[in-house]
Amino acid sequence: MIFDLHVTDGAARLGTLDTPHGRVRTPAFMPVGTQAAMKGVHWHEVREAGADIVLSNTYHLMLRPSAERIARLGGLHAFMGWPHPILTDSGGFQVMSLAKLRKVAERGVTFQSHVDGATVELTPERAVEIQRLLGSDIAMQLDECVALPAPPAEIERAMRLSLRWAERCKRAFEEDMPSGRALFGIVQGGDVPDLRRESARALVDLDFQGYAIGGLAVGEPQATMLAMIEEVAPLLPADRPRYLMGVGTPDDLLKGVARGIDMFDCVLPTRNGRHGLAYTRFGPVNLKNARHAEDPRPLDPESPCRVAATVPRAYLHHLIRVDEMLGAMLLSIVNIAYFQTLMQGVRAAIAERRFADHAAAVTEDWSRGDVPAL
Amino acid sequence: MIFDLHVTDGAARLGTLDTPHGRVRTPAFMPVGTQAAMKGVHWHEVREAGADIVLSNTYHLMLRPSAERIARLGGLHAFMGWPHPILTDSGGFQVMSLAKLRKVAERGVTFQSHVDGATVELTPERAVEIQRLLGSDIAMQLDECVALPAPPAEIERAMRLSLRWAERCKRAFEEDMPSGRALFGIVQGGDVPDLRRESARALVDLDFQGYAIGGLAVGEPQATMLAMIEEVAPLLPADRPRYLMGVGTPDDLLKGVARGIDMFDCVLPTRNGRHGLAYTRFGPVNLKNARHAEDPRPLDPESPCRVAATVPRAYLHHLIRVDEMLGAMLLSIVNIAYFQTLMQGVRAAIAERRFADHAAAVTEDWSRGDVPAL
Ligand SMILES: [Zn+2]
Ligand SMILES: [Zn+2]
Repeated sequence: MIFDLHVTDGAARLGTLDTPHGRVRTPAFMPVGTQAAMKGVHWHEVREAGADIVLSNTYHLMLRPSAERIARLGGLHAFMGWPHPILTDSGGFQVMSLAKLRKVAERGVTFQSHVDGATVELTPERAVEIQRLLGSDIAMQLDECVALPAPPAEIERAMRLSLRWAERCKRAFEEDMPSGRALFGIVQGGDVPDLRRESARALVDLDFQGYAIGGLAVGEPQATMLAMIEEVAPLLPADRPRYLMGVGTPDDLLKGVARGIDMFDCVLPTRNGRHGLAYTRFGPVNLKNARHAEDPRPLDPESPCRVAATVPRAYLHHLIRVDEMLGAMLLSIVNIAYFQTLMQGVRAAIAERRFADHAAAVTEDWSRGDVPAL
Repeated sequence: MIFDLHVTDGAARLGTLDTPHGRVRTPAFMPVGTQAAMKGVHWHEVREAGADIVLSNTYHLMLRPSAERIARLGGLHAFMGWPHPILTDSGGFQVMSLAKLRKVAERGVTFQSHVDGATVELTPERAVEIQRLLGSDIAMQLDECVALPAPPAEIERAMRLSLRWAERCKRAFEEDMPSGRALFGIVQGGDVPDLRRESARALVDLDFQGYAIGGLAVGEPQATMLAMIEEVAPLLPADRPRYLMGVGTPDDLLKGVARGIDMFDCVLPTRNGRHGLAYTRFGPVNLKNARHAEDPRPLDPESPCRVAATVPRAYLHHLIRVDEMLGAMLLSIVNIAYFQTLMQGVRAAIAERRFADHAAAVTEDWSRGDVPAL
């Protein structure tokens, strides 16, 4: 993987990430295809919406259909029919949130599969092996992520364990991973500035190809998240990409970019789409609302997304109300496209060194709110 | 609506139906979009799969979002974004199968909405009005459909009531319906040949633009269904289209065409797709089966359907096993395309007056079964 930083505008950065499966323009938003599928969206639609890279989840794939099976089938790109870049997480976060009877030890984490109850062990070495088998362009270290709020001592214990796992992941990666692929370290430390800085410095000493900021978007206020980014970002090397994990809303993305973040991922576009929420230039629109029931207008006639620009609100309202799959499918496309359009605008603004003005204008549009009801 | 009969080959017929929204090539299979949506399939995908016409359900739409609302939104074509021909049923069949507390009287049927429990009345006149409001290209008369087996006296009572409703529908249609649209009568009579013939003759006397055969595919053996078609088809005028309602499997379609049927509809392609079943040239393939778990081959490399020709069976198997929407979406496309490809082959064969040979060859391919496991 090669990261090129083309332009900086304040702390905001414009770059490209070249991976074995193609180029990623940064700042980038990665839609999430948890189980090797984007819920309700065809892969060609994800691409057409403008996504350069997607995220897939190690935890789910290791349980079903298993990393070994995907490897025998030619890797995740061939398996799911997405020939473009893929980033995989390490499984750590979802072991914490989904698995039962998990037990964290120095060696790794042991848990009961939420699928069949089998006992499974995930070590740093195994996490790297799984991501090698999947064929990820960008792999993540195994980390332990604690939900906030948490006692500082607990945050510190998990941060130090994650550092030791980072070192073991790096060793495993260097021994086994085909060239061209990348491994990112993950900064932990919860909402404790000292711990965040210590974690960042130690990871930089280990020299990763990129750095993620993990353990945020786990229940803390946005201000806390931004404060932690501000602690960490200045300590990270300028020539390596920075990835804010599991984030977030459009507003989180603008504020992350303003603080030097290059990559984001979140399930919001598809999850909220399934629940009837559309992201638009003028803020989120709840299609369940009765005001749309007889509104023949599209969500936004000027959107580059065909669905947002042409499909009547009344039809989307009907589909969501009667729980037709097509409603989730259409709104997921709208939202994936909106997040990509947002990032495209961000990149164009940084290129012209007008990011701050652009972000203010975008935020102003959001606060304008949806068009008046008919 | 103008029906042109171009070629007959035995009892099989090749024709075209010109409607206000375009041409339908017959024999035609109509995919079913019950609630103004094809479950799991975008409308442009339905079109790309080769469908000329789709069916939508009066019963569902009259309850949600209501015929009046769809009319205010410009009609069903504009509402759902399918600018091509639409046939609507009359609601009669689904009142019988879905509604609670239904009460059939001379005047019409009264029932409780399965959505909100409201009491709703559907009369022949209201069924025509609803279909006028929806903007259907082809409307159906209100009928009473009895599940088989049933006592002959009950079948006779429902058939005679359906005939009286046919007359009322025709009168309402002639008073109110914009020109170009069509109304079909529905032959009833269960599995009683005398009643079927009586129903057909009486409807022909009323002079409809097309004739449906209803009340089949309701639990009776295929042989009974075919016997009833053989009773009825010879009594119907050659210059009017014949529609076998709610049918069926690929084998039912070939056997219906062989007996002079021009139009079919069924939910099988999408319903079975959601359950992991793919229709192929070599018969149905159950993707849930473990034999596909590591099979990188597509369903049929020679299929004109991109999904059937390229997506690995192992991926489809995974998606169905983990219950990802994308599995239902992909297999529904495969099945809609297969049914259209089947009908395209049927039409080409009739054009060359080799339908019987073609049907035998297609049936032979089905009996060959799927390719051997790897
Ligand atoms: Zn998220
Ligand atoms: Zn059917």
